[in-house]
Amino acid sequence: MTARLTLSLDAMGGDNAPEMVIRGAELALERFPDLHFLIFGREEQIAPLIVPGSILAKASEIRNAPDVVGSDAKPSVALRGGRSSSMRLAIDAVRSGDASGVVSAGNTGALMAMAKFVLHTVPGIDRPAIASFFPTQRGESVMLDLGANLECDEENLVQFAIMGDVFARAVLGLQRPSIGLLNVGVEGQKGHEHIRRAATLLRESGMPLDFRGFVEGDDIGAGTVDVIVTDGFTGNVALKTAEGTAKLIGLFLRESFKSSLLSRIGYLLSQPAIKRLRSRVDPRRYNGAMFLGLNGIVIKSHGGTDAFGFANAIGVAADLCMQGFIDRIKDEIQNLTLEASNQKAAAL
Amino acid sequence: MTARLTLSLDAMGGDNAPEMVIRGAELALERFPDLHFLIFGREEQIAPLIVPGSILAKASEIRNAPDVVGSDAKPSVALRGGRSSSMRLAIDAVRSGDASGVVSAGNTGALMAMAKFVLHTVPGIDRPAIASFFPTQRGESVMLDLGANLECDEENLVQFAIMGDVFARAVLGLQRPSIGLLNVGVEGQKGHEHIRRAATLLRESGMPLDFRGFVEGDDIGAGTVDVIVTDGFTGNVALKTAEGTAKLIGLFLRESFKSSLLSRIGYLLSQPAIKRLRSRVDPRRYNGAMFLGLNGIVIKSHGGTDAFGFANAIGVAADLCMQGFIDRIKDEIQNLTLEASNQKAAAL
Repeated sequence: MTARLTLSLDAMGGDNAPEMVIRGAELALERFPDLHFLIFGREEQIAPLIVPGSILAKASEIRNAPDVVGSDAKPSVALRGGRSSSMRLAIDAVRSGDASGVVSAGNTGALMAMAKFVLHTVPGIDRPAIASFFPTQRGESVMLDLGANLECDEENLVQFAIMGDVFARAVLGLQRPSIGLLNVGVEGQKGHEHIRRAATLLRESGMPLDFRGFVEGDDIGAGTVDVIVTDGFTGNVALKTAEGTAKLIGLFLRESFKSSLLSRIGYLLSQPAIKRLRSRVDPRRYNGAMFLGLNGIVIKSHGGTDAFGFANAIGVAADLCMQGFIDRIKDEIQNLTLEASNQKAAAL
Repeated sequence: MTARLTLSLDAMGGDNAPEMVIRGAELALERFPDLHFLIFGREEQIAPLIVPGSILAKASEIRNAPDVVGSDAKPSVALRGGRSSSMRLAIDAVRSGDASGVVSAGNTGALMAMAKFVLHTVPGIDRPAIASFFPTQRGESVMLDLGANLECDEENLVQFAIMGDVFARAVLGLQRPSIGLLNVGVEGQKGHEHIRRAATLLRESGMPLDFRGFVEGDDIGAGTVDVIVTDGFTGNVALKTAEGTAKLIGLFLRESFKSSLLSRIGYLLSQPAIKRLRSRVDPRRYNGAMFLGLNGIVIKSHGGTDAFGFANAIGVAADLCMQGFIDRIKDEIQNLTLEASNQKAAAL
């Protein structure tokens, strides 16, 4: 049941690396005591952060990587020049089988480019997508793509729907996730042509997906569907808009409570409620986006997160590894696309 | 100073029309006592809603319109078949000069199609855009396009920036609004090609705009810039995502306060603060989107709003009319584009 699971960590990625990564690994060990880490980065910076004889020291191994991928490095440049970077070597460890998955808080574009180059996509998927889950009125939902593919055609969107379906079943434990395509209206004639074509494909594909048609921006928070499919440009804007709105309301809430003495007292009494609210919308809780569609578990942590957030990203990686997610997604994609191509062939 | 201003109202548009429109007109008169309304719609439905001898009765005139544009009518169909609709006749009144502006809570696509057909765009603008203002951490900002143009090229985006600049100066009273292009990163190489080209045009145009480059989704709530420029698809998704997130957090807040007795007491004491918060994020306060770029003031109210929200949409129309907004925007666009073409000519 609890076979030792090894994850590789890019210790040098993120605003507060490597401290944040090391503290995050320690926190993750509290939840997953059987984890083992390969920590990639500059040994002279990492070694002093790990107390000899500590739980982390026993559960990890530092692997020296001389280079660091800059947070503003162009993906193509990082790919060519970053062969001895902590990010690249951490991904290589997944390829070689030394690790079951990798977690990095570094440059998203570079991580995607390297992961694609090293791990390749699974059969049936042209382009990987970034997926994450977030709170809704009905519980939690999954959205993809969150920024890997700015331009998508209908085939990409259909593949995202398939990957989102499998991801939602794995991380949210749903039997049959409902799927919606993000659009500017629910009527059939609205939106970009490739979105309408994707809807037609999903409806007529014969794949056993619970496709519910179009959803709009407010359906994200409402939790109208379990999986929201969109291109990487729109998904990225939507995700960040939601984060910005949550921050804005948090600020308004604090300001409102300071507006009178009675409110200040109310605020003090309401501390548990406010703490509870804060925890429910805490972006660190939802930290850890999955690069879906690759031959390996690659989890991107938010660059600005802290140890608590990074530990959650490690948790997502651990969950997916323990569920044999990559094999599951391969099987599902094969089954779904096979079924779809049979249907297509039958229709011709 | 307070010359009588006439607005035409589409009494039949919106979920709770015509009652909501009539009550909204009454509320608007409290704030703008010098307003006069031409109320278009089915006389037999509208007349019973107006108390004879009331302030509204004295300040309005019902103009019978036998037809109603359905909320799900296709714009092209509404344009061809809706010549005797309340929406169309209300727009015609602006064209004829009977009214200075029109307010409708009806079908957005039909309203845009009819307004474009009847009023035409101002010189220098190819396509009108939908603009609205919303709360931010720094005050209020303007965003456009919110859904009129799903596909935009760089020229459209540049025109939106110009219109947004003039709109922000008029409705937010800013001297020199800062302008940002919505993108998935602030670095120059990110995003769709037409967005990058629009940034180059805005930087090199020589127009006296305070263009700040790219902004991301979380900059909307942060209020990083005064004017956010984007295509209608992205703008619509961002706006609705923000609305959905605000609703979600409101729900979480209520649930959190109910989670313990102490929190319930805190909630009671905090009522003024919570009321204040609710009012700050109340979408009805920000109701009234402007169709920018037309030869006439056309304000779209949210279809699901109530009388309070509709009165705010009337308020936006009244504000813009009193400021001679259409002439201002015409002048500014002429000046800006003239300046830009001079610069272009000089550069050749």
